[in-house]
Amino acid sequence: MRTAVLVEPHQFELQDRPRPSPGPDDVLVAVREVGICGSDVHYYEHGRIGDIVVEDPLVLGHESAGEVVDTGENATTLEPGDRVALEPGVPCRRCSHCMEGDYHLCEDVRFMATPPHDGSFSEYVSWPADFAYKLPTTVSTTEGALCEPLSVGIHACRRGNVGTGDTVLVTGAGPIGLMMLEAARAAGATDIILTDIVDEKLAFARERGADLAVNVADDDLEAAVTRYTDDGGADVVIEASGAVSSIQSTLEVVHRGGTVVLVGLANEATVPFDVLDIIDNELDVLGSFRYKNTYSAAIDLLSDGAVDVEGIVEFESTLADIDDAFERAMDPSVVKGLITVGE
Amino acid sequence: MRTAVLVEPHQFELQDRPRPSPGPDDVLVAVREVGICGSDVHYYEHGRIGDIVVEDPLVLGHESAGEVVDTGENATTLEPGDRVALEPGVPCRRCSHCMEGDYHLCEDVRFMATPPHDGSFSEYVSWPADFAYKLPTTVSTTEGALCEPLSVGIHACRRGNVGTGDTVLVTGAGPIGLMMLEAARAAGATDIILTDIVDEKLAFARERGADLAVNVADDDLEAAVTRYTDDGGADVVIEASGAVSSIQSTLEVVHRGGTVVLVGLANEATVPFDVLDIIDNELDVLGSFRYKNTYSAAIDLLSDGAVDVEGIVEFESTLADIDDAFERAMDPSVVKGLITVGE
Amino acid sequence: MRTAVLVEPHQFELQDRPRPSPGPDDVLVAVREVGICGSDVHYYEHGRIGDIVVEDPLVLGHESAGEVVDTGENATTLEPGDRVALEPGVPCRRCSHCMEGDYHLCEDVRFMATPPHDGSFSEYVSWPADFAYKLPTTVSTTEGALCEPLSVGIHACRRGNVGTGDTVLVTGAGPIGLMMLEAARAAGATDIILTDIVDEKLAFARERGADLAVNVADDDLEAAVTRYTDDGGADVVIEASGAVSSIQSTLEVVHRGGTVVLVGLANEATVPFDVLDIIDNELDVLGSFRYKNTYSAAIDLLSDGAVDVEGIVEFESTLADIDDAFERAMDPSVVKGLITVGE
Amino acid sequence: MRTAVLVEPHQFELQDRPRPSPGPDDVLVAVREVGICGSDVHYYEHGRIGDIVVEDPLVLGHESAGEVVDTGENATTLEPGDRVALEPGVPCRRCSHCMEGDYHLCEDVRFMATPPHDGSFSEYVSWPADFAYKLPTTVSTTEGALCEPLSVGIHACRRGNVGTGDTVLVTGAGPIGLMMLEAARAAGATDIILTDIVDEKLAFARERGADLAVNVADDDLEAAVTRYTDDGGADVVIEASGAVSSIQSTLEVVHRGGTVVLVGLANEATVPFDVLDIIDNELDVLGSFRYKNTYSAAIDLLSDGAVDVEGIVEFESTLADIDDAFERAMDPSVVKGLITVGE
Repeated sequence: MRTAVLVEPHQFELQDRPRPSPGPDDVLVAVREVGICGSDVHYYEHGRIGDIVVEDPLVLGHESAGEVVDTGENATTLEPGDRVALEPGVPCRRCSHCMEGDYHLCEDVRFMATPPHDGSFSEYVSWPADFAYKLPTTVSTTEGALCEPLSVGIHACRRGNVGTGDTVLVTGAGPIGLMMLEAARAAGATDIILTDIVDEKLAFARERGADLAVNVADDDLEAAVTRYTDDGGADVVIEASGAVSSIQSTLEVVHRGGTVVLVGLANEATVPFDVLDIIDNELDVLGSFRYKNTYSAAIDLLSDGAVDVEGIVEFESTLADIDDAFERAMDPSVVKGLITVGE
Repeated sequence: MRTAVLVEPHQFELQDRPRPSPGPDDVLVAVREVGICGSDVHYYEHGRIGDIVVEDPLVLGHESAGEVVDTGENATTLEPGDRVALEPGVPCRRCSHCMEGDYHLCEDVRFMATPPHDGSFSEYVSWPADFAYKLPTTVSTTEGALCEPLSVGIHACRRGNVGTGDTVLVTGAGPIGLMMLEAARAAGATDIILTDIVDEKLAFARERGADLAVNVADDDLEAAVTRYTDDGGADVVIEASGAVSSIQSTLEVVHRGGTVVLVGLANEATVPFDVLDIIDNELDVLGSFRYKNTYSAAIDLLSDGAVDVEGIVEFESTLADIDDAFERAMDPSVVKGLITVGE
Repeated sequence: MRTAVLVEPHQFELQDRPRPSPGPDDVLVAVREVGICGSDVHYYEHGRIGDIVVEDPLVLGHESAGEVVDTGENATTLEPGDRVALEPGVPCRRCSHCMEGDYHLCEDVRFMATPPHDGSFSEYVSWPADFAYKLPTTVSTTEGALCEPLSVGIHACRRGNVGTGDTVLVTGAGPIGLMMLEAARAAGATDIILTDIVDEKLAFARERGADLAVNVADDDLEAAVTRYTDDGGADVVIEASGAVSSIQSTLEVVHRGGTVVLVGLANEATVPFDVLDIIDNELDVLGSFRYKNTYSAAIDLLSDGAVDVEGIVEFESTLADIDDAFERAMDPSVVKGLITVGE
Repeated sequence: MRTAVLVEPHQFELQDRPRPSPGPDDVLVAVREVGICGSDVHYYEHGRIGDIVVEDPLVLGHESAGEVVDTGENATTLEPGDRVALEPGVPCRRCSHCMEGDYHLCEDVRFMATPPHDGSFSEYVSWPADFAYKLPTTVSTTEGALCEPLSVGIHACRRGNVGTGDTVLVTGAGPIGLMMLEAARAAGATDIILTDIVDEKLAFARERGADLAVNVADDDLEAAVTRYTDDGGADVVIEASGAVSSIQSTLEVVHRGGTVVLVGLANEATVPFDVLDIIDNELDVLGSFRYKNTYSAAIDLLSDGAVDVEGIVEFESTLADIDDAFERAMDPSVVKGLITVGE
């Protein structure tokens, strides 16, 4: 089978590799669509993310969907021909995190496209059947691939306990910020504010239903939020930009007693926090890491039409053109690219 | 001012009463719209609900909205001309329930149209300003009145922790069941099943977006749910019919580890429950009583267009014709009637 | 190895069976102490519990602790010589219940001494290493075996969210009721009421720290609770008797807005519940099924001296005398018997 | 009546003031015991805490208990002779925080000894009856006064959801840290670690039951915690020191998926936080502000003997000697001083 392997920064190599055989609990999936995530692009550019270094050739890609072509003997819930979305992180199933339902915090998780685990820019992937979610006819394979970033949004909204009538502020209007917009609205938020420093992204957010979009390079966010919420602040603030100034601003725009959810990975090690704000306003400042138990909900929301994810896809390419696709994805104004694999 | 007083079962009397003066924390409201609730109809027919007997002449009506015409000296958040929805139960603000945020469980709550407290079928009502919620221009006065039954739906969904992607089954497709449908969808439920024994009501529920509507007089609910959910059962079951057979059926159609919310008042004192089901499936069976802290969310949802409540209004009448309106409301196939007061 | 096999009601047979070899993730445990649970006694007497019938010879026993004598290749967290408590239910690790942390609700759980799965009245058991919890020197092997019933108490208290300063009422002063007493006190409950119909059991409960012990055959429980709590009722009521009258009484003695946890298996299929009480008082009526993620906490509490479980053991016997032990355990006034295995 | 008034930093003046009359919902309390809190000492020394400046003469003291001597007409739950603990912050009872049960976050709270509201270093105080909690005979008036700092501990443990079997690390072994120790143990924590930089305080914490006490001036906290918890970290970390280095260290010693509760007011505006730790380990970092709904639980715990607070009192003095008492309380090695008022 053909596989796109990152052999060094800025260089993929299309390799022929043996098609894997599914283990007893696995399904063999012919990959169809794979989203290009910011982390893929980061590995492509820099060969590392923080302390995680790509030392050996690595297959990127972890936002993927495809078609089942073979099943292991215990994998009875799926059959060839089923289209599936692949949840990319498979935990150990035995540690206390796994037993407590926090399998995403498992220290031994095998996560696609995180060294040393290969991802899905490949014609075939063998994957545990219970991490392959069958797509109904109402959900496209592209939507199946985008269950992954949508899951990040659903999980952050669950962490923040977003509910009906809430005002939610999301910092950063990139693909993750837009998924927060979708997930927050689906959870009942009625007032959703997005921020960014790029006017085009804010305009796009407005088109997609943001009630207020603030360019924090030009405008005073605290003043804008005070005006919009009539002084109360947002019930939940979701930080999806990773920018230090945005992280700091979360404490200024959240309602007393409200919740800040941190999702965006900061580009600096530490961020100065106003601890008095956290205590005096009795805030919840909550990290949100990947997701857990979100794929079924994501598929239900997509099937129901309650969220739209295809609208954020800006271009599609193929395995053969993956280098060009990644070069294009490096442009910060591009929201989302997708690689079509096979057929 | 004119007031419709229930003087005995099946008989209202239009009386002239002195217009109240607002206390220091109150607003005087010119009532505009008042919904006819099933409990109003029950008092009208029987002069009692269970142990609560109407002994003295009583003003009914507790789903109300109107216009502020005067304000007490401390009621600075509102001003004449503001349109407001009135939350009908005002608690003592001092007991442990109030202090813990469960003010709806306050034993000393003063609730409109519950003896000995008069309701709002009257030209004017004086009411605590913090229980009068200003309506934005995007929300009609009729919607303001219907914040009350919508609140019952919002509260039940909060009790049941309804969230994105959930399958929710609601027993009973009357006005409260339909509010559950609205509130559950707003909270992210993607599969909503309604039941009833009247085909017209089920058809109406389907029109309003129910994904499945089951006539439990004709069909086997457990089989229908098993088929629809592919054997899993509903994540949350909300009992809004009060029928003993429906109450019992909740335990059969809920997912293992799921939640049953009881809202509909049973017409019999006790219902035989299968306790082994509750234990072996580790169910949560939760009472849901009225609501608390729902009006702001209700108004936000209405303003956002996330819910539709006006569509359930079947007829409007006036104070002068209130007897006829109540006779009409007694027809079980009528979903909702409304009394317009003044101007 | 020697194993006590229930071949028909009231008859154990001591058989020689091959000592099991541990699988790669398992440890081989030389069993030392096994508690006699009410369910073991029920199988012994009747050959069935409800619909679960013992059709083939069955090894009973699921409250067990012992010493590791061999380890599978992946079972690196334990080593020969470690004393361990065995959690008796091992789930599939793959279904949605398992993934959500509710592994005790897994439909494919393999639970000791529940047909067709053998239990631990045997010299050796091979068991998954992650369901074998190492005991510190401060915790005896007997205490290790009693982690099982203590877990039932811890889980019920977690379900009921028992916390500091709570008043907790436990119906039934048998071994499970006494474990509720221990677990509730450890969780911060300051007022614990027990009920029973046997004066000796109530006296024992009082000795073990019950603040109030009510014989519900003689006294009016509602009146006693009203008096004790100064009319408020208990914050949490834990039903541990399985008696229909006790189950019904829970709704009368719980605080408005409070919680009822159902643990005791009723000896009748259905129990008439006053649904109006559940709704008007907005109660939580919660099933509590076995336990999950409790063994570490149980061991910590035992090691800390925060709970006492050995005090409820009334007699110890051996595998050779298991028939006599079970005959003795059938006496309802006996609180707890234990079988010592090996050495 | 005699009142100790802070007229300028380091100077109290004993004034004669008219004895207040209780309002209709109030009780008049003859004050008996008032704890000296760190905030009182801070006002005494500096005439301000952060932005809150003492501009007019102020009565300090907010940890108080006494005896009811008169009651307003609605204050029927208490009668003269009752001993009561006074909860020092009375909210507006009308804002959304109050309605949601977060009355401690009410912006209009009237809090004793916070300008411009006088405290309780006075012979008499008139106070709302529902914020005066009757003490049973089993709880001393001194314990009643210390319900206030104990409440800070109970609230922080509730915020952190401390439960049975938890490992809790508390930074700072001053009076608040010691109250955390009491409250955490009462809530079921079995392993409690305290830190400080003063050996005497750590020795005292050990005497009072800390399982591990670490001098963070000398020892590497992360290493000590790793060793003690066998690499897992603490389930809950409660920051009670306000020291910047301690605040930062919380993220290093907390379990993955665990909770950090911030209580101690930092002496610097901002603290550099490692945001990646919060996200990657999906931590909850929670502010804890004063307390709410804790007094009944505090009194129950004291009455039950589940906590000990009198043991932290180092000296008692009188209103007449209040200057000397405050000078003594300024010594950082003194844990707690108390002023006896009247009789």
